[in-house]
Amino acid sequence: MSKVLIIGATGTIGRAVVGALAGRHDVVEVGATRGSHRVNFKDPSDVTRLFESIGRVGHVVTAAGNVHFGSLAETTVAQFWTGLTDKLMGQVNVVLIGQAWVNDGGSFTLTSGITADQPVRDGTNAATVNKALEGFALGASIDLKRGLRINVVSPTMLEESVPSFGPYFPGFDPVSSSRVGLAYVRSIEGGDTGQVYRVGY
Amino acid sequence: MSKVLIIGATGTIGRAVVGALAGRHDVVEVGATRGSHRVNFKDPSDVTRLFESIGRVGHVVTAAGNVHFGSLAETTVAQFWTGLTDKLMGQVNVVLIGQAWVNDGGSFTLTSGITADQPVRDGTNAATVNKALEGFALGASIDLKRGLRINVVSPTMLEESVPSFGPYFPGFDPVSSSRVGLAYVRSIEGGDTGQVYRVGY
Repeated sequence: MSKVLIIGATGTIGRAVVGALAGRHDVVEVGATRGSHRVNFKDPSDVTRLFESIGRVGHVVTAAGNVHFGSLAETTVAQFWTGLTDKLMGQVNVVLIGQAWVNDGGSFTLTSGITADQPVRDGTNAATVNKALEGFALGASIDLKRGLRINVVSPTMLEESVPSFGPYFPGFDPVSSSRVGLAYVRSIEGGDTGQVYRVGY
Repeated sequence: MSKVLIIGATGTIGRAVVGALAGRHDVVEVGATRGSHRVNFKDPSDVTRLFESIGRVGHVVTAAGNVHFGSLAETTVAQFWTGLTDKLMGQVNVVLIGQAWVNDGGSFTLTSGITADQPVRDGTNAATVNKALEGFALGASIDLKRGLRINVVSPTMLEESVPSFGPYFPGFDPVSSSRVGLAYVRSIEGGDTGQVYRVGY
């Protein structure tokens, strides 16, 4: 039983992670605007503050971040930046800063998404950000010290997300949160590093 | 014979592209600090100025951009941003702004690199940026209008780059610039879209 920090614990995927880890680990739930622990992961100084207040942990999960959805013809440079500053650099900030706070042999598990491999209309920013996260984990996997591991979970749309995201994913078969949660267990408790777990493709 | 805008024409890969396209197309060479046409592709307003001065083109190639090399443990958030603002958003700026200036059925060909698939020490920023570019092209490939196409060339280290990059790529077999140049010809003159041409892997 390790201490597992879950950033984005109050979101749809975060709740799936909490559900899968509850009872197996000492879960510390962190939200953006809800919960007892909060962080604005876009702000490196706030990420530092979070780790200083929590202390050392066994594993870190990030399941948070927004991207811009919109047709490429109408996407402005500023809109495109939103996904980079939020879903991409928010998770990257957590690894860059958190690597000093994770115990030997511990892990980071980031969250990308199916648009990394299977494009959808209006989804270019999402595809960019999700692939970037997978590249980050691949690169970091051979550069992290002290046996730290890093993997990415790339889920398709969750069943709970159909009301909000269904129109962007026509014909996509939604996946249960319990199946998505398993991938985080595998990353944390297994020995993998540099892997992408594609769930529900 | 189409007008082909080559951004980064004075770099190692850019020269390979110019060599492969010379005689086949009307090549417009654009450099960052050299050549008759120049652009700072990190600055969207400068990219707009470039297209306004060149006018409509048949195809656009981007072969430019810097990333940060350094161990993950010592990489700061600010250093990590350098690759995002330069190699990633420089090329993205060209597509977002340039899509209105490319003739029907024309193409964009971006440049990533082998670290997207095969990590190297100190190369996490490069892996992130290169995968991001491939995700961008995949997403854009189904969102671009008027039959515009977009592909990515991901070369391994070029023979000409061994003196500068060789230490980062131990045991990697360098590729000739003529082979790399062929991939750009294939992207421009073929019918592909959303593809990644891995050259010399």
